[in-house]
Amino acid sequence: MLAQTLSTGERLSLITRGLPAVSGTDEIQAILTEGSRSPKGIWVTVPTGRPHLGYVVPLLKMVDFLRAGVDFNVCLGDIYGFLINFKYPISQVEQRKRFYKFVLGAVFDAIGVPASSLPFVDESSYAYTPRHIMDMYRLSALSSQRQLRETGDEVGVSTMFGPMLTPILQALDEEYQGSDFDFGGLDQAGYFRVLPFASRLTICKRGLFEFAEELLPKMGYKKRAHLMNDMLPGLNGGKMSASLPDSKIDCLDSPETIRNKIMAVQCREGDAKTNGLLAIVRLILIPLNRLRLERSWGEIGYSLTEGRGVPESPPYAGPTGTVFTMSVDGTTKHYQTYLEIEQEYTQLQSHEAFKNAVSESVVQILAPVRESYSRNPDWQAAEKLAYPEGEEE
Amino acid sequence: MLAQTLSTGERLSLITRGLPAVSGTDEIQAILTEGSRSPKGIWVTVPTGRPHLGYVVPLLKMVDFLRAGVDFNVCLGDIYGFLINFKYPISQVEQRKRFYKFVLGAVFDAIGVPASSLPFVDESSYAYTPRHIMDMYRLSALSSQRQLRETGDEVGVSTMFGPMLTPILQALDEEYQGSDFDFGGLDQAGYFRVLPFASRLTICKRGLFEFAEELLPKMGYKKRAHLMNDMLPGLNGGKMSASLPDSKIDCLDSPETIRNKIMAVQCREGDAKTNGLLAIVRLILIPLNRLRLERSWGEIGYSLTEGRGVPESPPYAGPTGTVFTMSVDGTTKHYQTYLEIEQEYTQLQSHEAFKNAVSESVVQILAPVRESYSRNPDWQAAEKLAYPEGEEE
Repeated sequence: MLAQTLSTGERLSLITRGLPAVSGTDEIQAILTEGSRSPKGIWVTVPTGRPHLGYVVPLLKMVDFLRAGVDFNVCLGDIYGFLINFKYPISQVEQRKRFYKFVLGAVFDAIGVPASSLPFVDESSYAYTPRHIMDMYRLSALSSQRQLRETGDEVGVSTMFGPMLTPILQALDEEYQGSDFDFGGLDQAGYFRVLPFASRLTICKRGLFEFAEELLPKMGYKKRAHLMNDMLPGLNGGKMSASLPDSKIDCLDSPETIRNKIMAVQCREGDAKTNGLLAIVRLILIPLNRLRLERSWGEIGYSLTEGRGVPESPPYAGPTGTVFTMSVDGTTKHYQTYLEIEQEYTQLQSHEAFKNAVSESVVQILAPVRESYSRNPDWQAAEKLAYPEGEEE
Repeated sequence: MLAQTLSTGERLSLITRGLPAVSGTDEIQAILTEGSRSPKGIWVTVPTGRPHLGYVVPLLKMVDFLRAGVDFNVCLGDIYGFLINFKYPISQVEQRKRFYKFVLGAVFDAIGVPASSLPFVDESSYAYTPRHIMDMYRLSALSSQRQLRETGDEVGVSTMFGPMLTPILQALDEEYQGSDFDFGGLDQAGYFRVLPFASRLTICKRGLFEFAEELLPKMGYKKRAHLMNDMLPGLNGGKMSASLPDSKIDCLDSPETIRNKIMAVQCREGDAKTNGLLAIVRLILIPLNRLRLERSWGEIGYSLTEGRGVPESPPYAGPTGTVFTMSVDGTTKHYQTYLEIEQEYTQLQSHEAFKNAVSESVVQILAPVRESYSRNPDWQAAEKLAYPEGEEE
């Protein structure tokens, strides 16, 4: 199959596959059907703490967007990042932004997509224009205090004022980048949760995405589609967060550190739901293996060159028809589905082999990132300024 | 005495006389003493409802500033006005701003100061610059939600988000107009009030001025002096407000309307504290008379030309040594002090003569404003667009 001959349906299903939640995709379909231009997608990332392994999940998904011929931007929310950081001056946010560009670019390269396929756009490149600030004030006039306090995690946990502006900024990012869809983690969607201890009490959080869907049309702007990816949980469950060092694998962690962290994970027999390692398999290793297999079949999509520098036989990869491979006592074991892995996991007495398989895979994925870092003095300098010793959040 | 020979002490006392509250005037004194430049003052007015007689109070005080050689700007808070209006598009705020300029300019002329002595500066003329936007975000990052909710009347009465930005805008007005002091009504100051019904319960409102004093230094900017004037109460006590039609005299009210409104005021024997007419005498007629007398003595201050077109013998004006004059049953009565008027008022059985004296004075003061309006089609056009029939707030 020639890449350029993907049908509208194939393109749409590439765009949405594997995502746990989407809204407004009719519009994307209409653009694909009409055919006069590419759909435009954005991903807003906020340069705060150091990017960790969890960032590989959305980056992997972006390969699907590029294969489907989406025109995609990575938006660096630098003003957003300044408003939620509470401590650091904007000059330090600037360095964090540089650090993010180096890390994310190297991860793209590491998964076989040239970093140059994914242009970075700084929020600050359009947020200091008269039109943007006028829209910021217009959107402020249209929003209620409550609406903003209930939107987004950053607002919820802070008593400061700055975070209240972030849903406004992200809604405007959608407009100012001319996007058709905004891609983000499930944490950008709202939820309505009944608390277990009191059946009538509920927590209602409005998502950044719902806020944008509600407010942009009031501004006379288009409501965007929203595509959400699963979030990689922390190694021992909970959130994988830059501010919880034990929960995360840093994209620049050494092989030894990666191995130590993974080996230290508490794996309880029978407990699959909160296990961070199964999530790495499901959200990173299986999708990476699928991309590899699809490349081997020539299915590299709409107009993308993929696969440069990616190992032909990574440790997690087996033959066609399998999703994951690992070695147990010198024997190679192939799995056909993720569920098969999960079911086997729940009966394991020892998790050594499983931990080994995951850690060697992660070490291999991140090796070129670390290597790129070691060859790049600008990146190393940005790191020193972005995260002076001991400063992490 | 030549105008230019005012001493530093005379200039400072001109600047602060008659004001019920000031803070930070040491800095003004230092500038006057140093002598290399004029102090710079600003007054921020927000184009919302139609300007009423209460606006004459600060405008009269500005004559003192000009006489003292202050470099003074009237700042039109147009973005501020947009953020608190909840209903009207920015194009309508624009027309309200034009209307304000016409009214306030005509009132300056009517009190004998050429409108050209008081330059108007639009907030929007600097608020759409990158530096201002960056400062707005910096100040947002430094402020807490609570701090802003407690600051200013507009925030207190609204559930909308826009008003939370107004203390930030006004603080930046102080910086961006290069002011040494910000002049405003007592409503811009905070208060700490013990509620009468519960001795331990207090209401604490932070003022716009306290907010600016606290936050600008955190931005690396100078803390400004704050000068506050008394506010003219409504005709029957309470607040004189554009949104309470019975409380106010519009600057363009006809002589008949002015007379009817003043005649309808409830004057209760013995009740001086809540009476709006005594306040007109104290805050407008007596100061106007003083300016007139000072002009007759050649005391027109530092570098100001005053008195063009102002009647030599207005109805409220008597000879030197008196502060107010009125006619009772064909007899002219002069008063030496305001207290004398207030004491006499509390014993009056009929308030007819007093009401007459006040209404004829107000009619005469506003006559040139109305005349200027009738000769100015641009002003009339702005009025139609700014306040379409029935739209008032």
